[in-house]
Amino acid sequence: MAVIPGDGVGPEVVAAQLEVLKATGLSFEFSEYPAGDNHLEKTGQAMPDETIKGAQAAQAVLFGAVGVSAAKVILRLRAELGTYVNLRPSQAFKGVPCIHPQTDIMVVRENTECLYAGIETRLTDDVTTATRIITKTASLRIARHAFEYAKTNGRKKVTAVHKVNVLKITDGMFLDCCRKVAPEFPEIEYEEALVDSVAMRIVQRPEEFDVIVTTNLFGDILSDLAAGVIGGLGLCPSANLGDEHALFEPVHGSAPDIAGQGVVNPSAAIMCGAMMLEHLGEKQAAQKVQNALETCLTQGKTTRDLGGSLSTMEMAQEVIKAM
Amino acid sequence: MAVIPGDGVGPEVVAAQLEVLKATGLSFEFSEYPAGDNHLEKTGQAMPDETIKGAQAAQAVLFGAVGVSAAKVILRLRAELGTYVNLRPSQAFKGVPCIHPQTDIMVVRENTECLYAGIETRLTDDVTTATRIITKTASLRIARHAFEYAKTNGRKKVTAVHKVNVLKITDGMFLDCCRKVAPEFPEIEYEEALVDSVAMRIVQRPEEFDVIVTTNLFGDILSDLAAGVIGGLGLCPSANLGDEHALFEPVHGSAPDIAGQGVVNPSAAIMCGAMMLEHLGEKQAAQKVQNALETCLTQGKTTRDLGGSLSTMEMAQEVIKAM
Ligand SMILES: CC(C)[C@H](C(=O)O)[C@@H](O)C(=O)O
Ligand SMILES: CC(C)[C@H](C(=O)O)[C@@H](O)C(=O)O
Repeated sequence: MAVIPGDGVGPEVVAAQLEVLKATGLSFEFSEYPAGDNHLEKTGQAMPDETIKGAQAAQAVLFGAVGVSAAKVILRLRAELGTYVNLRPSQAFKGVPCIHPQTDIMVVRENTECLYAGIETRLTDDVTTATRIITKTASLRIARHAFEYAKTNGRKKVTAVHKVNVLKITDGMFLDCCRKVAPEFPEIEYEEALVDSVAMRIVQRPEEFDVIVTTNLFGDILSDLAAGVIGGLGLCPSANLGDEHALFEPVHGSAPDIAGQGVVNPSAAIMCGAMMLEHLGEKQAAQKVQNALETCLTQGKTTRDLGGSLSTMEMAQEVIKAM
Repeated sequence: MAVIPGDGVGPEVVAAQLEVLKATGLSFEFSEYPAGDNHLEKTGQAMPDETIKGAQAAQAVLFGAVGVSAAKVILRLRAELGTYVNLRPSQAFKGVPCIHPQTDIMVVRENTECLYAGIETRLTDDVTTATRIITKTASLRIARHAFEYAKTNGRKKVTAVHKVNVLKITDGMFLDCCRKVAPEFPEIEYEEALVDSVAMRIVQRPEEFDVIVTTNLFGDILSDLAAGVIGGLGLCPSANLGDEHALFEPVHGSAPDIAGQGVVNPSAAIMCGAMMLEHLGEKQAAQKVQNALETCLTQGKTTRDLGGSLSTMEMAQEVIKAM
């Protein structure tokens, strides 16, 4: 395993995560690699080649958080690892104040193209452009992944989120691909919805969504929105998956305001650990970690952001006790 | 005034709106023009030239709703009328169930460019593109409008919403323009925030926002999201403003499921009427309409979607009584 703690609260949540992973009894080897603002300041490089190579050589990568250099670090990693899927669950937990306790949404975000392709121009002094790329290859691949995910995980519905009334050709392509894949999964309901209306519905009736499949930027926005509905980014892990590599990162950032105090909520990182275990085929261990975490959340054994009084490491210890 | 009732519930909300406007005692002349799905079916054209001309000749345009041909109709109208600003208020009302009663956000949405420029290609069988255009001209203009709006309306803060960590050049341009305008308004606080984090914050702490200025697509998504927070699109009017023309439209769509039953909530259309009065310099009349509507909402004199028992026209009558 490659571990990239990064900046701010990154090292603290990763330390908690590793404690929990070690307590599963499974034997992993962890190698730590630098990246982020700190490293940039020290060496002039936010993302050293050594870290890329370490990540590429690893079976899985655990990522903490980065600050200002986030885009350089995480977008580069996603690209170098060929992780074309970004899985972003937002699930409400008992004991955590949230807007809709029935929320349980998995956003399956395309992770390689859209406005993230990095193609921008300054055409004239007045005019700048960015190119949104949507390909059949990537759209079919992400649609298939979403339906496979739904099938494997007992989900009932996939909603393809788009803005085809404005983006007729690009989101037309995206929807064509979803429509092509949907009939291969007759047991899964298939729905299409406009991104603006989905934003409203996630706020008002998130229980209408199950698995959402969408393009890169809409996935970015909607997953943060869903996180808001379930009580915040502190509870949202994510998995970047490709054919050869897997990278797990909390959706939250480096939170410089509370970094170094040992108070950051480790839940997202611990759930990242569970997602990694699941990915490695260690279903039982994954379930044990996830259940233990949920027990702690239900019993109020949490950090102060959720009303508890534990430190980051104390919460990790409680999770371990509950396993 | 040009009136374009459109499809679905459009004619019903417009009828209610006109009743209220007539009751102000101000004398307006209203000419009705066709557009939308119905007209498309009858004539093969969703947006007849006659309607464009009528809208261009009018002092202001009142728009109802359109269905499937929405993009063709409303995007065309916004373009032909040169309305480069889209004002989208989301304000919580006493008596209406909502997630955060302190919400009072004005989204100032750029209305002419971004991914709405309509520049898409099918480069190969596999690759499609859409071009996001951000210009200095349009960005300065919308930034200035947002600050002017804030100043004129006693607002305290303008938040520029962007995704500059990914869209370095285009959102870099947008932010440069906002930063250039901000110092001209020293009394207004200026803040910048990433669109994903804003999506989460609007759900969790909408009271942190006052005026939001943003590009076209983010404005589309965030205004629907804010609508969700205050209890739905039924309460959201909008104004499309340019140097020569003004078009007022409820943010809601044609709602075919309830069309023709006389039960649709006319609040958004009535607030559109108030926005139009305000725009025409009839501040007092605008305030009277808005206050009367709020009184009805507070007293539960509403249509059934808000728990009341009134028909669309009965609710309009109650607003008139309260004026
Ligand atoms: C840091 C940023 C580039 C990144 C993204 O937009 O993907 C972040 O918002 C995320 O969602 O992981
Ligand atoms: C119908 C559609 C093209 C339109 C838009 O995206 O602008 C609508 O969603 C709106 O917000 O008015």
